[in-house]
Parts: sequence; C-alpha cells; structure tokens
Amino acid sequence: MVKNSLGRAIPESFGGRPLIPYSDPFSLRPDAERATRALRRVNPGDNKLLGGLREAIEAAGLKDGMTIATHHHLRNGDALLGLVVREIDALGIRDIRIASSSIHPVHAELIPYVEKGVISAFECGVNGPIGEQASKGELSCPIVVRTHGGRARAIITGEVPIDLAFIAAPTCDAYGNMNGYQGPSACGSLGYAHTDALYAKTVVAVTDNLVPYPAAPISIPQTLIDYVVQVETLGDPQKIVSTTTRVTRDPVGLQIARYAAQVIEASGHLKDGFSFQTGSGGISLAVAEQVRRMMREQRIKGSFGCGGITGYFVDMLEEGLFQALFDVQCFDLRAVESIGKNPGHLEISADMYANPFNAGAVVNRLDCVILGATEVDVNFNVNVNTESNGYLLHNTGGHSDTAAGAKLSIITAPSIRGRLPIVRDEVTTVTTPGETVDVIVTERGIAVNDKHPELKKELQRRKVPVKEIRQLQQEITQVTGRPRPLEFTDDIVALIEYRDGSIIDVVRKVKE
Amino acid sequence: MVKNSLGRAIPESFGGRPLIPYSDPFSLRPDAERATRALRRVNPGDNKLLGGLREAIEAAGLKDGMTIATHHHLRNGDALLGLVVREIDALGIRDIRIASSSIHPVHAELIPYVEKGVISAFECGVNGPIGEQASKGELSCPIVVRTHGGRARAIITGEVPIDLAFIAAPTCDAYGNMNGYQGPSACGSLGYAHTDALYAKTVVAVTDNLVPYPAAPISIPQTLIDYVVQVETLGDPQKIVSTTTRVTRDPVGLQIARYAAQVIEASGHLKDGFSFQTGSGGISLAVAEQVRRMMREQRIKGSFGCGGITGYFVDMLEEGLFQALFDVQCFDLRAVESIGKNPGHLEISADMYANPFNAGAVVNRLDCVILGATEVDVNFNVNVNTESNGYLLHNTGGHSDTAAGAKLSIITAPSIRGRLPIVRDEVTTVTTPGETVDVIVTERGIAVNDKHPELKKELQRRKVPVKEIRQLQQEITQVTGRPRPLEFTDDIVALIEYRDGSIIDVVRKVKE
Repeated sequence: MVKNSLGRAIPESFGGRPLIPYSDPFSLRPDAERATRALRRVNPGDNKLLGGLREAIEAAGLKDGMTIATHHHLRNGDALLGLVVREIDALGIRDIRIASSSIHPVHAELIPYVEKGVISAFECGVNGPIGEQASKGELSCPIVVRTHGGRARAIITGEVPIDLAFIAAPTCDAYGNMNGYQGPSACGSLGYAHTDALYAKTVVAVTDNLVPYPAAPISIPQTLIDYVVQVETLGDPQKIVSTTTRVTRDPVGLQIARYAAQVIEASGHLKDGFSFQTGSGGISLAVAEQVRRMMREQRIKGSFGCGGITGYFVDMLEEGLFQALFDVQCFDLRAVESIGKNPGHLEISADMYANPFNAGAVVNRLDCVILGATEVDVNFNVNVNTESNGYLLHNTGGHSDTAAGAKLSIITAPSIRGRLPIVRDEVTTVTTPGETVDVIVTERGIAVNDKHPELKKELQRRKVPVKEIRQLQQEITQVTGRPRPLEFTDDIVALIEYRDGSIIDVVRKVKE
Repeated sequence: MVKNSLGRAIPESFGGRPLIPYSDPFSLRPDAERATRALRRVNPGDNKLLGGLREAIEAAGLKDGMTIATHHHLRNGDALLGLVVREIDALGIRDIRIASSSIHPVHAELIPYVEKGVISAFECGVNGPIGEQASKGELSCPIVVRTHGGRARAIITGEVPIDLAFIAAPTCDAYGNMNGYQGPSACGSLGYAHTDALYAKTVVAVTDNLVPYPAAPISIPQTLIDYVVQVETLGDPQKIVSTTTRVTRDPVGLQIARYAAQVIEASGHLKDGFSFQTGSGGISLAVAEQVRRMMREQRIKGSFGCGGITGYFVDMLEEGLFQALFDVQCFDLRAVESIGKNPGHLEISADMYANPFNAGAVVNRLDCVILGATEVDVNFNVNVNTESNGYLLHNTGGHSDTAAGAKLSIITAPSIRGRLPIVRDEVTTVTTPGETVDVIVTERGIAVNDKHPELKKELQRRKVPVKEIRQLQQEITQVTGRPRPLEFTDDIVALIEYRDGSIIDVVRKVKE
C-alpha cells in the first residue's frame, strides 16, 4: 500500500496490474504510442451480415480470458449486453472481462453469469445492483471505475485491449454504416462507441433496424465494422430515452439553482463565447433555465453546450444562445430528434469529449459545468461513486473530466440527503479531486475554493451567502448530527481510476 | 528486374525499398498492424495557435530527411505547399520527402527546391511540369504514384510515415476544428486530409479564416490537431473550385456518352439501389445526364453517388435519385454549397472512399463508374499516367480504386486523340489492370471484356455497336496509322503503385 497525494491508501498492484497512485490533475503525461490492431481487407462482394450474435462471437474467435465491450447509449433499456453474455455462456466460453462504457441496473441480469464464471471482471463502472453486491462481498468480481474520458484514454493507450466490441446500432446498413438517430431504439449520439470502433480487435454492429445501403447520416462508418448482426430488438424504447427531462419543482432544489446561477453571473464567465455543461437532473436543468434567462436578457451569444444533451440545450442552440452542441449522449427525446437535423448539433466521441491524452478535449474549453455529489468534504473532494451506506452504486461518468477541464466547476447538492450531511471531514470515496472543484452550492450557503479569492469577494459583494466550508459543514451537522463512520474490511472491491489512469481511490468491502 | 503478372519489368527495389510486383487486384492481404504514433496531452489553457508556418515547422522538430504532406483539395489554387517549402528552405532543412495527396501544375514552383536539394523525393503522383521534367531526365527526384485509396493505405500501414502534415483549412478555430465549407478558400470536402490527421506525427492546421471556437460543422476535429497557423491566404479561389462543370458539346463526346448510357442500361445494374461515379469531365457529365434521364423515366431510386462530386450529382441527390453522396472532393461550387447543408451529402475520407485494406471501402459498393484513359490496350489495361509522348503528366486518382471496386467499370474515350489511336497493343504505362476494366466505349464502337459474355450479347441484341477490341483497334489504326513506338532509357523515373502497394508498372526516362 502507498498513499496517494490525497492520503488514500492504494495497493501497488491490482489483478496483476501495477498501479500509479494519483498525484495531481494535470502533470501525468503519456509515455506511449497509441494502441494498434491488425489491418484487414474486405473485397467487393464480401458479406459482413452474419446470421446472429453467436456467429459473430465465433467469427471473432472469442476465447476464455478475452475482453468484450458494449456501450450505454441505450441506458437502462439496453438488451444487448444480456443477449451477448447469454450467447457467450452457451458457447462455453468463460472468464470474460466486461469493458463496457457503463453498466446499468438492467444488467443485474449478469449476476448469475458472474457467479458461474462466465464474467470474471468489470473493466468499467457499474450503476446499481452489481456494485452493491460487490460491496457486500456477495459477488467476487474486480471492478475498475473509469471516467468517460479515462475509458477512451485506456482503450487508446491499449491499457484496456478490447477483443470484441458489440455496438448497438439503432440504424445500420449491411455494410456497417450506422447512426443512432432513427429506428425503434433511437438514442441519438453513439458517442461512447466511437473509440471502440477504432480500437477493438473485432467490431460487430448489432441492429434492430437494418436499412438499405447506405445508412445516412453516418456516425460510425463501414470501414471500422467487421460484422453486422440483426436482432429482433436492441432494448426497451421506454427506458432508452426519457420522453422529457424536467426542471425540479422542489423549493430546495430551486434555491440551489438560483445560487448556482448567481455564482455563474459573479464569475465573469457569462459573456459572449460562454460554454456550459449541465447534467439532466432537475437541479441542473433549473440552473440551465436560469442561465438561459440571463443569456437572453444580456443578449449573450455563447459558444457551445456539451455533455449529455437535453431539450433545454437544444432550445438554447435553436435560439442562437449557443453556436454548437457537442453531444456524447442524448438525454431526452428532443435531443434525439435534434441531433439528426440541427447542423450545429454535433455528435462527438468520448475521446473528443474528455480524453486527457489527445490534442485537446472539449472539456478543456468549458467555462462552466454544473455537477452533483453524494458527498463533498472540507477539501472540496467529491464523491459520486459510493452512497452513504458505502456501497458502490454509481459510475463516475464525466464528473472528474469536466471538473478538471472547466474554468468553473460548480457542485450543486442539497445540504442534507437521507438525513445525512453533504459536507464531510473526508468523503467516503474520492471521485473528483478538490483541486478541480471550484464552488459547492447548497441551499444553506455556498463554499468557494480558496483558489478563487476574487470570486469569493464578488459573491460577498452581491450578498450571496458565501461561507467557509467548515462553517457550512458545522451548520449542517448541527441539524443532522455527525454521521456514524462507515466500517470497511481490507478487501478491495473496486478501483476508482482518475482520468489520467492513476488511482485516486479504492472501494472496500463494507463491514456488515 | 522481375516481370509482374502483366509482363512489366519491375526492379527488386527502389530507393532502398524492396518492391512487390503486381499479381492481381484482390489477393494481396495485409500482414501488418496499423501504424501508430505517440500520444500527447493538451491541458486546459494550453495554446495551439502559433505565429506562423516557421514556428510550426520548428515546433514539430522537422529535420533533414523527414516527410511532409499537404492535400490537393485546393487543387491548382493551392498556395500552401509553396509557402511551406519556402519556409523549410529558409530554415536550412534539406532532403525532404513530399507525400502530399497530389501535386498540381501550380507546384512547378517547387522545381528550384528540388534542384537545390530541399526536396529529394515525391511520395505521390505529380500532375504537370514536375513529371514532365523528370521524364526528360531534367529533374532527378524519385516519384511514387499512388491511387487515392493506395495513399490512405500506405499512410495507415506506415509504409509512408508522415512526420509533419499541413492541412489547408478553409474554416478553422484556434483549437483546430475545421471544415472546408466556408471561407474565402472554401473547397468543400477535406477528404484527402483525414488520414493524415490521424497518422502524421505532427499535424498543423493552416487557415485564412480563423473563426471563434467552435468551428462547426467539424470535418477534422481538434483532438487530432497539434498546432494552428493563420496565413493571409491559402490560395487563389478562382483556381480552387470551378464555378461550373459542364456537359460536353462535342458531337464525338456526346456519341460516346450515349453509348456508355446504353451499356449501363443493358448491364442490368440500373435499378433501385443503383450506385454511380463519374468524373467531372465533359463526357462523364454527359453520361451522368443520360443516367439521370433514365432514372427519372424509369422512376429508379438509386443508393449513392460518389467520388469527386459535381453539381450534377447534387441535383440528383436533391431530386431523390440518390439517397446519399459520398464526397471525397468537391469538383464545383454547387457541390461546395451543398456539402455544408444537405444532410445526405456526406464528406468521407480517402480511406473510406477507396483504401483496399480496411473493413470495406465505398468503391466496393459501386455499381458503375465512368472513367477516362489516355490509352487502352487489347488486354483492357488502361493508362492515365503518361501521355503519348511518354511523359508522366497525370496522377492515378481513384482510377484503379473504382475500377477494382465497381461491378461495371466503363472507360470512355475518343478513338483518336492527337492523331493517335486510343487502342494499343500495349499501353505505355499500366495504371489500371484490364482485369478490372469491363467495357471500353469510343465513338467508333464498344469493346466488352470477355468476363461479361451476357452483357456483350445483350448489347448486340440492342444493336449497340459492340466490337472485338482488336477489331476496334484495327478500325482506328486504319485512320491513324500505327504510332511510332516510344523509346525509353533504362532509368526509372517513377513507380506506378497499385492500390494494394504492389508495383503495376514503372515510368522510364524518355529517350529524346
């Protein structure tokens, strides 16, 4: 064990892989060449359309110990990963590593296959039951949680070599050109799958909407796709995209959003060229609404909105408040409808979105991002991975990517959640280092990182309730009391990998 | 020397590089991994905008013996390659290899730099004076002519490692996002530059239209661009894009076009899903006009048009005769205007267009292509590289790529050109092997490759003047007489590389 710069004890290796302890957000530089793969040749007349997933697995030569990937653009509606794992099991293949872009609660269906030895590791974060069972010690299967940018980086560096990628393609032709804009499983951007298409040893497009050649527009082109498989359905459309995402109506949430908007205004970033990211949660959208109002009133012409895109951002694009949207994932139907037709609504890969090891990701150009937290601590470190019970329940997503990239990263969270205080002495798990977190906004007050004395002064001038973070903590714990510390065993259940590949924290088994 | 399968004498090596003699169009398979390059890291706040080309050359660490590339999307209006070479010379760097996508007559300005030793090789085909001088022995500088697909292949395999690529970007932001759709040097598709952006060791975007971040739409993204340089002008807009491309009015050309259209109709390919490529020459466009008429009359819904795109193809897209256009290069203003706004008008890379070593290029899906020739021979081999004087004057372009890919490749050419017969016993230089050439159409008759007995029969049934190729040759030479054979020395001036990297022919110095 060694302590990383945040004082977290990190093992020297994990599953045989030597680990780099986290040091700081920006100084680790790649000393490697981009991963490669064998060239191929497909001649005129060659057929890529196979009879089913099993034929594709066989054609790819999948063997025990190899790594597969799927992507979470179908979210909790995804049927593909389950279909694939059942076929792998039926073929008697074991010890498979899952390097998907994210695992959702629907994938609890994989648990029996972990127990059976078909799946032996998750090279990806897990939302929901799998993480919970792992945290309880009920499921033995190492997990490596990566950020969206970090996953792209790990594939490109070859740290996570994917033997076989299955890309859910809502619209696809028999030669593999695909997009996510049309079809019964339309999901919009296929942003998480682009890097796999470029780097996986074999790439299979799986579609429930096979169209005549050529599918157009093209998100991922034929030149990267080895095989095409048609299935009856890729998933449950009801769960693929929300019909709507809505602004919170909760008064606490609305208060937080107002404060966050005041922080943005006070920061001086809200001017022509403003760039912005929010999530799809109710508070985030309330902040977006405030920002939109201010941009309109002040006739500000922003540059771009990015991240998971919602109808709110589409409206802002169409209104001329943004010049472009960078879309790695569509969060609602309105975003899905827009990406296929708005020329300024651009699909981007997770690599372009957030990979720290390329010639400059989009997050580097962000002025402001609004992020959530399950806990923050007095050093501004943020936890979004584990819940108050210590269970690993959430993926990092773009949290630490955008926090590192944006000039102003704002954490919005209610001061009390499930009777527990949001501000802790130390977060249970560090997802995002405090050095990259600029402001924490709760309904009881705002804490500004010491890196920004002018912003603090300006907020005070504007009579916004700025507080020292320890004072904020004290006010909250006066209500909640100090929470009972969680107890963990020494067993490491998951690594929390920072975007540059260093290890920022680990998740240990909860002592029940 | 060894003879390749077409009987052409090929040296065992050239400039130290061992050569593979051409065997056949489809059987050579890559036994290699994709080339790689060092990873990089660009942090928030890092600046990519440099003061000028010289700073970019210095930042890239260009040294004697290295390879640079530019691209021919600015065609004969390109000023960039000249600017770059002058800066390289001024820095005292020598022995540079030029691996541009093509060299145009405007680049005759490079001749003094070849003589001076700044430029020591052309890893690309050369249109115009440079090839002529090399053919005469007046310029000593080895040339390797590649097809559009072959160039992409050679970059991806690492056979041509590009140290420093300069991409002329008609619209670009300071972070390197670019497109060719807008700006004073607008040219449309940047198709030839995509592969360089992915594989060159250092990539510099050069623009005369720097726009606020983000430039959108994005043809080549920021993640691949190391530096951005602003210049006063990228070239001469008058020469970048033709204002119009026109159907021939020459009666001979019109007769050829009518015959070609009859061949297409007789072939059975002209039905729903029809895909088609023509060049921008007057005969090609006349064929396109005939095809359009037939598609309208027969209510045929085609799939795609591809290649260099003209206004004719844009009209066909907008009329619903094609579902999509695959555009590696825009040939006229109307195409440039369309690519930025028609959702079915898709920019593609030369890799996607024609590289034989990927998971399937667009040319593989072509039903029919109309191509030109400076000579054909009785074995259907075609020459487009050398002229009747033996001088290397033209690049291969997509000629042999599309001939290999298309189900029906039609050569259209007047039977007599400059008093010389188009059909020879042997072409001076083999650009495209006869095995991939299906029909030769002249105004005096049509020759069908023996591979297609049904097509021949069908054309006879339709009373189209089909002739044996030797008979056609005889009829033409009765008018022209037999041309005096050209005489060459043993000195090899250029290699003609087939799309798969094997050598299909060489160009020798002309004996004056």
